[in-house]
Amino acid sequence: MGILTNLILDYWLYGVTIAFGYILAILLYDTKNDKNRAGVAKNDETDERYAFPDSTSDAKDKEEADGGLNLENADTRVDHEAGKEHIPFTIERLSKAEMTRRSQEFYQEMNKRRSVRFFSDEPFPQEVMDNIIRTGGTSPSGAHTQPWTYVVVKSPEIKKEIREIIEEEEEVNYRRRMGDKWVQDLACIGTDWNKPYLEIAPYLVIVLKQSYGIAPDGSRLVHYYNEISTSISVGLVLAAIQEAGLVTLTSTPLNAGPRLRKLLNRPINEKVMLLLPVGYPAPDATVPALKRKPLEEFMTAI
Amino acid sequence: MGILTNLILDYWLYGVTIAFGYILAILLYDTKNDKNRAGVAKNDETDERYAFPDSTSDAKDKEEADGGLNLENADTRVDHEAGKEHIPFTIERLSKAEMTRRSQEFYQEMNKRRSVRFFSDEPFPQEVMDNIIRTGGTSPSGAHTQPWTYVVVKSPEIKKEIREIIEEEEEVNYRRRMGDKWVQDLACIGTDWNKPYLEIAPYLVIVLKQSYGIAPDGSRLVHYYNEISTSISVGLVLAAIQEAGLVTLTSTPLNAGPRLRKLLNRPINEKVMLLLPVGYPAPDATVPALKRKPLEEFMTAI
Repeated sequence: MGILTNLILDYWLYGVTIAFGYILAILLYDTKNDKNRAGVAKNDETDERYAFPDSTSDAKDKEEADGGLNLENADTRVDHEAGKEHIPFTIERLSKAEMTRRSQEFYQEMNKRRSVRFFSDEPFPQEVMDNIIRTGGTSPSGAHTQPWTYVVVKSPEIKKEIREIIEEEEEVNYRRRMGDKWVQDLACIGTDWNKPYLEIAPYLVIVLKQSYGIAPDGSRLVHYYNEISTSISVGLVLAAIQEAGLVTLTSTPLNAGPRLRKLLNRPINEKVMLLLPVGYPAPDATVPALKRKPLEEFMTAI
Repeated sequence: MGILTNLILDYWLYGVTIAFGYILAILLYDTKNDKNRAGVAKNDETDERYAFPDSTSDAKDKEEADGGLNLENADTRVDHEAGKEHIPFTIERLSKAEMTRRSQEFYQEMNKRRSVRFFSDEPFPQEVMDNIIRTGGTSPSGAHTQPWTYVVVKSPEIKKEIREIIEEEEEVNYRRRMGDKWVQDLACIGTDWNKPYLEIAPYLVIVLKQSYGIAPDGSRLVHYYNEISTSISVGLVLAAIQEAGLVTLTSTPLNAGPRLRKLLNRPINEKVMLLLPVGYPAPDATVPALKRKPLEEFMTAI
């Protein structure tokens, strides 16, 4: 018999025990991981089930329990008592002709809106800015949690710091993460990491979502659908900017969020979602010749 | 020496080998799992890094590469050629007094909006509904992908089916997922699984986000920030409903999305986000006595 056979005969039992330990470990480990993985899959929205990207798993359980939640009106720990009392609701009644005219006019006004990246440095009244943000505060929100924070920056020093942070991150994005071809393409439409408008526009509005709230006793409060609610609020802000005869650029300061949050001294439960410079357009402002889809391409009536 | 000591002396080597196999297994397994977990953590936004809840991991890579993406204007495969040409942009210039007045009026109008669950069955012109949805179509969107679909349901049969689907899911939500106490609380504010307004309101608007697009060659197109974009579009729709003197209830048809999508014959890349019944309020409509945060609680000026 060869040496190998001898070795096997002498030590096979050790091999078996190692294998036994190995299998035991995997079994124990798998059980533990399955539980973790189940949690992840639940949040994952493979393709059909509605996902709750906004919520921690705690929040998710609460949301599931509150099935068919309405983005307002619903019962909540935040404003529980107030929600119980109902009051009469009336709205000014418009004639059919009047509502047709108004809906047409409002559409035409909103349809003039374009995202603009060329700003004038001409200031406008703080009161206008306040009214614009107030309008955002009329948005519905999951369980009336109003999970948005608007930071309005007028200070030239802070605007300069914001520009530095965003351009630094942008340059990394452009140089390291994008192909040369793409960078060239973007150059054609005037998009690169230089964002002088961040210092030129009289106001920068940084929109943060409150991922969760903090109760007086320090415990976390669930903020249902905080990202959807904050985005709807931004829709109202965009309408208000347009109504005021001003322009903005709806932008997502990618990868700069954490640094911006710290610069603006916002708490850890808030996350930067969007940045909106607001002002008059520059006299020589241009926009890309983009078209919008006609109604029949995004609406179906049945 | 006792039996135990004898056993240990005779078999300690087996114990050591079992332990060895166990540790080996854990080490190998951990390495594998760390890789998986790293992927999850990236999408998870533990606390600081911006997450892209809308996108598949493919989409995510693309989005990271397109750092600081603007929700319009940006280069995209969808509308690449159109984006290159720039055209002059002008906007009607308002005096400071005029912009202050208009921003004030618009805020006051939007502040009258409430989520209403008591509708009149009185119809209103389809043209008004069209203008409202058209207004939603003026929203900015990630790389101008316009990733929203609005299904406007007027058919009484389809409304009935929608009501059945939602009430069925709601009843399960209420009976199985909520505690008795909570159900009682919700009953006080008139929230339960019965939703007669789904048949009473003259129109139901179902809002779907297009998680991705489909190119003519069948390949997937990235839809940047599709959930944020669709929600901003809904903000404009809510403003348009209010301007037209109508009311809605911004609601999330939890767990009913997949069945609604099939009922409405929408493709797999679309996901139901919101349901908006639209109409006149019932003459005896009531709303919960909720208050909105004053400006200083959600805006900081620096």
